[in-house]
Amino acid sequence: MSRVFLDMAVSLDSYISGPDGQDGGLHDWYFAPDAAEDIKAELLTRIGAMILGHAAFGSAPDGFDTEYHVPHFILTHTPLPSVERGGASFHFVTDGIGSALRQARGAATDRDVCVAGGAQTAQAFLNAGLLDEMQLHVAPVLLGGGLRLFADAPPSSLEHVRTVQSAHATHLTYRFTEN
Amino acid sequence: MSRVFLDMAVSLDSYISGPDGQDGGLHDWYFAPDAAEDIKAELLTRIGAMILGHAAFGSAPDGFDTEYHVPHFILTHTPLPSVERGGASFHFVTDGIGSALRQARGAATDRDVCVAGGAQTAQAFLNAGLLDEMQLHVAPVLLGGGLRLFADAPPSSLEHVRTVQSAHATHLTYRFTEN
Repeated sequence: MSRVFLDMAVSLDSYISGPDGQDGGLHDWYFAPDAAEDIKAELLTRIGAMILGHAAFGSAPDGFDTEYHVPHFILTHTPLPSVERGGASFHFVTDGIGSALRQARGAATDRDVCVAGGAQTAQAFLNAGLLDEMQLHVAPVLLGGGLRLFADAPPSSLEHVRTVQSAHATHLTYRFTEN
Repeated sequence: MSRVFLDMAVSLDSYISGPDGQDGGLHDWYFAPDAAEDIKAELLTRIGAMILGHAAFGSAPDGFDTEYHVPHFILTHTPLPSVERGGASFHFVTDGIGSALRQARGAATDRDVCVAGGAQTAQAFLNAGLLDEMQLHVAPVLLGGGLRLFADAPPSSLEHVRTVQSAHATHLTYRFTEN
């Protein structure tokens, strides 16, 4: 059955970007020459649709280049026409996370829906109890400030599913048992 | 050579205790029937002295029962006479972390000095660049609030040393390379 999972890179002090918006090496696990290819391949296989907040999406009304050739649902307040680009499609959702999730589930069919950020979108999905799983890519860095993941998460015990260590991160997977 | 390391249990959202001071299962890795015995044994072997903040130490002027039969140095503003209890000794340090560290190093001889909390003491050692290593015991829980570890850490890249998964936590060890 299709699952909904959060997938985020995070520092040891729980930031997803630094005080000046810098990456701080958080995404080296994905982009470095010695990236975690197994984890990347797994994501490419399992993801049938993506959900992104408008801040994480950035200012790319024409979409962006991605190796995830699946529908992307962008949470925004500004309606825009859907666009296609390089095998991916981008759909702008103005009526909330419930609507985005319904559309993403429909598009993903039997594959999984990935909530790929940012912090505000992650928080909204956590608060609404809509996540089945969470995968964190924990980088060996302290950012000391910036955009916090889990600034105000609902308290919850998770079930540990898997730990994988790669060159640039510890990849931790958990299941939300309350769902 | 003797090393100085921070050793703390922490939630996925970087808290060391919950909004009401609750443990939230953070220390199950140590106290549960299926505790991480290898990690515990390693700590018992390597630690030659402990440093604790007065809040982490609590209100125990006569010391407390511990299987760490080593000198404990308690950072406090209230001078108290040293006490011995069950093989451990407790020394109250009123002149700051530098003094506590000097005394702990002297007491530990060739074994390591463990900074065991709490958040304020951890932060002080981080800010002063006095840590060689850090071991985090990451519990599969979101606490949603409470006492934050790394509320305002100096930005730093760490060297990943080891990842061990046990029943109740992921044990992550890092080296501070700037030191």
